Amino acid sequence: MPEPLRLTGISASAGYAEGPLYILDPVAAPYAGKASAADERLALETAIEAATSRLATLIEAVEGDAADILEFQIAMLEDDALTGPPFAAIDSGQPADAAWRQALDAEIVGYETSDQDYFRARAADMRDIRDQVLRALTEDSEAGAPAGAIFYGEDIAPTRFLETDWSSGGGIALKAGSAASHVAMLARSRGVPMVVGLGAVGLGASPAHLAGVALLDAEHGGIVLAPSKAEIEAFRRSSSSFAARRDRAETFLARPAATKAGTAVRVLVNIADPSDVEAIDISTCDGIGLMRTEFLFGKTLPDEETQYRAYRKVLEWAGEKPVTIRTVDAGGDKPVPGFTVEEGNPFLGLRGIRLSLARPEIFRVQIRALLRAAMHGNLKVMFPMIAVMDEYQRAAALFAEEQSGLSARGVAQKMPPLGIMVEVPSVAIAPEAFSGVAFFSIGSNDLTQYVMAAARDNASVAHLNSVRYPAVLRLIASIAAFGQERKIQVSLCGDAGGDPAAIPALIEAGLRDLSVVPAQLAMAKAAIADVSI
Amino acid sequence: MPEPLRLTGISASAGYAEGPLYILDPVAAPYAGKASAADERLALETAIEAATSRLATLIEAVEGDAADILEFQIAMLEDDALTGPPFAAIDSGQPADAAWRQALDAEIVGYETSDQDYFRARAADMRDIRDQVLRALTEDSEAGAPAGAIFYGEDIAPTRFLETDWSSGGGIALKAGSAASHVAMLARSRGVPMVVGLGAVGLGASPAHLAGVALLDAEHGGIVLAPSKAEIEAFRRSSSSFAARRDRAETFLARPAATKAGTAVRVLVNIADPSDVEAIDISTCDGIGLMRTEFLFGKTLPDEETQYRAYRKVLEWAGEKPVTIRTVDAGGDKPVPGFTVEEGNPFLGLRGIRLSLARPEIFRVQIRALLRAAMHGNLKVMFPMIAVMDEYQRAAALFAEEQSGLSARGVAQKMPPLGIMVEVPSVAIAPEAFSGVAFFSIGSNDLTQYVMAAARDNASVAHLNSVRYPAVLRLIASIAAFGQERKIQVSLCGDAGGDPAAIPALIEAGLRDLSVVPAQLAMAKAAIADVSI
Repeated sequence: MPEPLRLTGISASAGYAEGPLYILDPVAAPYAGKASAADERLALETAIEAATSRLATLIEAVEGDAADILEFQIAMLEDDALTGPPFAAIDSGQPADAAWRQALDAEIVGYETSDQDYFRARAADMRDIRDQVLRALTEDSEAGAPAGAIFYGEDIAPTRFLETDWSSGGGIALKAGSAASHVAMLARSRGVPMVVGLGAVGLGASPAHLAGVALLDAEHGGIVLAPSKAEIEAFRRSSSSFAARRDRAETFLARPAATKAGTAVRVLVNIADPSDVEAIDISTCDGIGLMRTEFLFGKTLPDEETQYRAYRKVLEWAGEKPVTIRTVDAGGDKPVPGFTVEEGNPFLGLRGIRLSLARPEIFRVQIRALLRAAMHGNLKVMFPMIAVMDEYQRAAALFAEEQSGLSARGVAQKMPPLGIMVEVPSVAIAPEAFSGVAFFSIGSNDLTQYVMAAARDNASVAHLNSVRYPAVLRLIASIAAFGQERKIQVSLCGDAGGDPAAIPALIEAGLRDLSVVPAQLAMAKAAIADVSI
Repeated sequence: MPEPLRLTGISASAGYAEGPLYILDPVAAPYAGKASAADERLALETAIEAATSRLATLIEAVEGDAADILEFQIAMLEDDALTGPPFAAIDSGQPADAAWRQALDAEIVGYETSDQDYFRARAADMRDIRDQVLRALTEDSEAGAPAGAIFYGEDIAPTRFLETDWSSGGGIALKAGSAASHVAMLARSRGVPMVVGLGAVGLGASPAHLAGVALLDAEHGGIVLAPSKAEIEAFRRSSSSFAARRDRAETFLARPAATKAGTAVRVLVNIADPSDVEAIDISTCDGIGLMRTEFLFGKTLPDEETQYRAYRKVLEWAGEKPVTIRTVDAGGDKPVPGFTVEEGNPFLGLRGIRLSLARPEIFRVQIRALLRAAMHGNLKVMFPMIAVMDEYQRAAALFAEEQSGLSARGVAQKMPPLGIMVEVPSVAIAPEAFSGVAFFSIGSNDLTQYVMAAARDNASVAHLNSVRYPAVLRLIASIAAFGQERKIQVSLCGDAGGDPAAIPALIEAGLRDLSVVPAQLAMAKAAIADVSI
């Protein structure tokens, strides 16, 4: 029995799993060369078709984000720009497997070295496509993982995640990976425990370590290989406690949130698409604290009518409860073709309100849609990435201009309260310049990455990216105090709002309004109930 | 006479110039095709040789940074990897000019879209090479600019800058450009006024605007085309005042700096290379406030002996005055092959102390060199990009380990005081965790870019990148007050320290130690003398 080996990473989806390791292997089966170029072509055509139809079957079984990912993969497999070069290579004498691998590897390098995080995140999808076709070529079916296994490797393919039956437990432990990846998003929404950034296993790892049972603690972000008896017992206690907390949390869902001492806390939800509201019971939350609008800015820029309908749908769903819509926060890690620009440090560049003010003709369309939608509910509008008061004033002036224009044309409209995100440190450090805004909403993810100078999507500085560092909490407490003094509402809509480990510190810092992703609603309310203030 | 047209940009090198505009044109002369591919080859070979020998002549006339730039260009022209493709294109029937232009344009796109600022900055050099060879091919000599002209265009080639005689005035006004470019560095060191980021001339610009005299105000960052009489008079007053301030400043150089009220301020200098000290009279400054060590980390990683000799040279030059050496601040905008990693947001990534701690085997070499060099002067060592106290403690532990190692081997060494840069906002917001460090040095450039979330090298957010925003000054005042209370020295070594417009606010914020680039020493002392505190 080897010594226990403990690896530390970053939690990408909280939970616990105990089970055998299942090693995620690259495609290894040998390919049997064909007699002629024509036969090689046929082999590749057949393999691509097999991979495509496998994806199409998978799409039937999933929905939402997951279907989007698979549709992207199918679109790539059907794109001649991708499949042309390997067929050309076959015609000039290469075997199908080498031709496909080389063409895809070249594409993947392009994605991996892109300076846009969006495209870098797509590299995993491209690797997935590469391996699916290679498996179809070599008829190498992926070995079935035992039920409840912990998948362990460099990274896991989205299709692999979707094909796995997680109903009997199991989890994911990745050496690389990112908490911002597609698979991480899926894992969180399906409650599959996942840890990323474990690094290469160092000295002391042996085949025996990999063969035994492993303990995945995705609440704190770690894994133990070849655990001792005592470790297994402690792990099971933590796991039961987590499950009990989760079960108990469900009982909090229907009630308004309050601390042990009876302090009321409003808990709202963050949504990224109007369809997200379909899975939410409005009676379980205090409204929408953040509705992102980037979903509208895809391959083409959205017209006023499309935007108006999307905003109106959510406002009508929420009834009298507030819906805070954020004007488009493009740039940073969210490129939009025809809108954003390429930059060396996009998180410190032309993004959020900066970009909207630089492209007022695009911004005005969104403003008109918001002014019209305001007639249909309790709308609040906030601007992302405000650093100086002048930006707020210019944005507010555009709202006033568009309101006059609509009014002159007899179009029904209403001016919503205009607030700002607090994510650029300058606002929290010197808030007095902003005493004229209608409300503040702390974007804790961005605020943290700037205060700590550690990008939120970079695993090598992830240890610095925590809202719980004193400097970040101090700024949060300071803006909360400023809001209280000036009677300006201060809420928080970053990931920290839904993190049970961060919630006590946020309440202590003076916050009474948290907005969380729908999946965290129950746990957030339960965590609030444990706070003694 | 057209209406005056005022364009606003960013000052890249302070000063004033009044004169005709000289429009920087792309190469326009037609190329006379040759009879055969062999003749086309010969034409391109001859043109490359002509360009190379022109560069070689230019090198004779310049030194330092300027020579480095030209040597890079010559190396590129002599690189078969660059010149191979155009010759191959000629062999397959292309004329020399099209073959060269296409090959270089493809290279330039690669440089421009690199996610490394270092390579993006090299794109201007590649365009320079392209145009020099095209000019040699078409025998299109660059039109001579009139004496005292203001060069106006997208960007200016480094060779163009170096060939121009600036002794009778003139300046540079660029639509694009960057204050971090090679030409901007050269302009500052030679006192040539330069403004960047003026943008495309909008509505209202006419040929008449471009034909007349222009006023370049590179103190505040703007240009006026077709100025009114009153504007010309006001401009001349500002220009005289600037010249008078500059002349008067020289008289301050030899004296210790003090405010009007007699408050003593220590003024030190920043250097980037040991040879920088050759141009400095040690009696005019209070020591070296920042010696960067990135110059050592070029194509190969430096050995202990090379580092030791470089540090010792500066320490011996400074005598008893302090020399603060910063451990290698690679990453961010300073990639080092074999050391730094590619990242989507390098300013928020694995840089400075983070990288040194991640690669201790490289860091330990520098530590040993510093411990040994400490025997030869008044050495202080500081760590860049400290965000949390744990990083300082780990770095200090490595110093202690290496000291024991040297001591055990009987090598002469000495532990220098170990301080930290204050550039990650977390340190200035919550300094109490750092009360054990020997000194603080505020890196105002990085501190500002994080507090304002605006990259220092991105022209589109340059308006947000100023140390004079209240939030930045508040953090500076807060760390200065903390230092005073705990008796820990706090200095500042960013560009703001040498900016006469920022100096009063820095003194008011409580700073009494500023470190500036040698070229700003006199102006900084003069500006301090004007402060009334």
